[in-house]
Amino acid sequence: MDRRKFLKGSALLSGVLTLSPFELFSSKNKVTPNPLGKAKNIIFMVSDGMSLGTLSMADLYSKNILGKGSNWINLYQERKVSRALMDTASASSIVTDSAAASSAFGGGIRVKNGVLNMGANGEKYLPIWQKFKKAGKKAGCVTTVTITHATPAGFCVNSAQRNAEPQIAEMYADLELDVVMGGGDEFFNPEKREDKKDLYAVYRKKNYQILKDRHALNTIQQGVKTLGIFSTGALPYSIDRSNLSEFKETPTLAEMARAAINQMKDHQNGFVLQIEGGKVDWSAHANDVAALIHDQLAFDEAVKVATDFAEKDGNTLVIITTDHGNANPGTIYGNDATRNFNSISDYRYTNEYLLNKIHKDYSVKDITDWVYEGNKIALQNDEAKQLLSFYNGLEKEEGLYNYKKLPFKLYSEIQKKHNAVGWISMDHSGDYVEVAAYGPGSELLQPFIKNTDLHDLMLKASQI
Amino acid sequence: MDRRKFLKGSALLSGVLTLSPFELFSSKNKVTPNPLGKAKNIIFMVSDGMSLGTLSMADLYSKNILGKGSNWINLYQERKVSRALMDTASASSIVTDSAAASSAFGGGIRVKNGVLNMGANGEKYLPIWQKFKKAGKKAGCVTTVTITHATPAGFCVNSAQRNAEPQIAEMYADLELDVVMGGGDEFFNPEKREDKKDLYAVYRKKNYQILKDRHALNTIQQGVKTLGIFSTGALPYSIDRSNLSEFKETPTLAEMARAAINQMKDHQNGFVLQIEGGKVDWSAHANDVAALIHDQLAFDEAVKVATDFAEKDGNTLVIITTDHGNANPGTIYGNDATRNFNSISDYRYTNEYLLNKIHKDYSVKDITDWVYEGNKIALQNDEAKQLLSFYNGLEKEEGLYNYKKLPFKLYSEIQKKHNAVGWISMDHSGDYVEVAAYGPGSELLQPFIKNTDLHDLMLKASQI
Repeated sequence: MDRRKFLKGSALLSGVLTLSPFELFSSKNKVTPNPLGKAKNIIFMVSDGMSLGTLSMADLYSKNILGKGSNWINLYQERKVSRALMDTASASSIVTDSAAASSAFGGGIRVKNGVLNMGANGEKYLPIWQKFKKAGKKAGCVTTVTITHATPAGFCVNSAQRNAEPQIAEMYADLELDVVMGGGDEFFNPEKREDKKDLYAVYRKKNYQILKDRHALNTIQQGVKTLGIFSTGALPYSIDRSNLSEFKETPTLAEMARAAINQMKDHQNGFVLQIEGGKVDWSAHANDVAALIHDQLAFDEAVKVATDFAEKDGNTLVIITTDHGNANPGTIYGNDATRNFNSISDYRYTNEYLLNKIHKDYSVKDITDWVYEGNKIALQNDEAKQLLSFYNGLEKEEGLYNYKKLPFKLYSEIQKKHNAVGWISMDHSGDYVEVAAYGPGSELLQPFIKNTDLHDLMLKASQI
Repeated sequence: MDRRKFLKGSALLSGVLTLSPFELFSSKNKVTPNPLGKAKNIIFMVSDGMSLGTLSMADLYSKNILGKGSNWINLYQERKVSRALMDTASASSIVTDSAAASSAFGGGIRVKNGVLNMGANGEKYLPIWQKFKKAGKKAGCVTTVTITHATPAGFCVNSAQRNAEPQIAEMYADLELDVVMGGGDEFFNPEKREDKKDLYAVYRKKNYQILKDRHALNTIQQGVKTLGIFSTGALPYSIDRSNLSEFKETPTLAEMARAAINQMKDHQNGFVLQIEGGKVDWSAHANDVAALIHDQLAFDEAVKVATDFAEKDGNTLVIITTDHGNANPGTIYGNDATRNFNSISDYRYTNEYLLNKIHKDYSVKDITDWVYEGNKIALQNDEAKQLLSFYNGLEKEEGLYNYKKLPFKLYSEIQKKHNAVGWISMDHSGDYVEVAAYGPGSELLQPFIKNTDLHDLMLKASQI
């Protein structure tokens, strides 16, 4: 313990009996030192694009259908975490994108939407995982989308363009990140990269172990730098992973999180790890409620992995939050709101899978049968015909992750009549969002913060 | 101080030095006595139907346009309150109505939607303001809608039907509530009541002072039972009150709140007061963003009145919350999200006022000019024509408070293109909601609660 800390500690203790008990225990108390000392490890968890409605619906679904509350809300019920409300704006907008949001956490400054840790005049801000690497810690990222996507990238690199994913894959190798896990074979595989570079060879030369499926993940060597790439692009949605055999060899976010923690946990200087539920955001962009709830619950399983580890370890700060809201989904008042909401448990596939399976030669009966099989929803004839018009080239929808111009919005509006869940749009929202923190440093969390404050909190909690 | 409390206190103090400083200051600490003793007064504030997006947008509008944060969020920044997330479900649904929600707070039990403190088999649960009256405290309610509406009624009466407003007006007189303030002349005035009863005469006989406008409110006699009825139905929306001279004699919620507190504050046994921003809910039902933000900010002014009083008084618990979400409004991502959102400051009237002014003989130019005057929005010709079709009897909209079948939804969709604010529906949502508590008893607030827990908290904080 250094002298300054010791003096702070004794001032604190000698002051105890002059405080009223109310002041001692009140959340109003402004004397909030970090008496346990620094957080050796930090796990930063982002359910990307999680509006409060998403957190609420996942907890409700878990209670109504699975018979237990979500791990996130359980942390509140067990009084294990500090909480805050967070303003997520970027330098350019009240509504951020994931690049600016991750830069706020990662670079400690607000940048304009679309860039990673770059100021208006090209200034580069050192990303936080690089700061921790310099301080001797291991650092890693785990996600369900491409590992080169904005949210992991914002903790690791500077880039004027968030979409420079092939280059970001190279930057990670230069940084020698200790764990790099998620999707994105298209940015590592020489056969898929435009420049034909073999990134796997580059990582192998740097003594990385390379994992490509769930089985390989189970045989991970502890302590060895790890590149785990489990899909061409993003990983499948959790509900499809559970119900479609083609995805059985893809690991869950919780499995990746556990492996990443195990790989780094014995490092003497500690580790930092970002865990992202990236497809919570994508499902909100698609207004796909089953995909959303199941991916939020998959994130929630990873929350349990992280907090269980932190509880045992005692030196790990876990921050659990989102980078911004998306689509503000919510259950809507009505006579059968509960029954309608619970009917989401009949959904077997994502809307993406369901809509992708429809062919232009489907009859009204074909599409009606298929939708019933997938969602137990009985389509009206006019709904079936309107959906089919998208497959005959008569109509199309745009949308951020809607590569095939499928009728996500129309289909979500049909589902809404049955499941009583609505959406404000197919894009991010500027709502303030939920933050929870567990472990040493969590007492530094103020009740209302800006996204950049979490950057400062991580540095302060770890005394870097 | 009684013996039990003294022993609890000394056990606490003797234990202090065996706790680690982290345990002392952590929010995890489960030892949370109420060392200041009971809350003599309770002010319960409900921004009815306030989704998190409403709180966020009001704070953002206040920062962007008025140059200062909202009082509610300031309480967080100043670390003056405890916070919780609250599940608002009713006995019959994951999405409550205001009657069941107020019964949860007021009766301590979840009842089915539509009823006030009545169980499934007709059981009556004693409403909390009656409990406090029996304990010798003064009790009152203040609202911007009819004072006989569900939210105030749920703290005061039992009724199998929330809509029994004429009867509820009589019940209040029987209870001799100390402050009854809001709208609802239609339920007190013999010329407007179906049964022609003169409720004002009934109240006068019970020695109430009767106030009918803002001027009268300013001359209120302290300590005298007060019936203040300032409008036939609900009070005007705040933005219309500010901009239309016809409403200048209607008091604001903050003015009513201040008068109510002053009337009751010198009572030796203390007082309990409910303050409702009722038209936050109505504006969400109408998807009317300017009405919503300005009524939320009017509620926010009342928050300041209540917490300023509580801060001076030292014995007052203030609970600040909502009964449920409504429409989950939020700002939407886009190139001009900030500018678009800020354009709401150009809106001079509610959509209700604006749409009500349109006549069926308006030309496309007339309606275009009028909308530009009201909102600085330049209507497209097809938008103008579509709006006019509602005045020619060709189209109509339904909706809870849409008595005149006006095109609220269509108009909100037109506004959305300009202000980047979206809505999931025109009805309540089941999102978990925000709770803040200030003063003695606030330390009893757990991080995640059910609506019924606030009932228990009020009783526990006041030791009734």
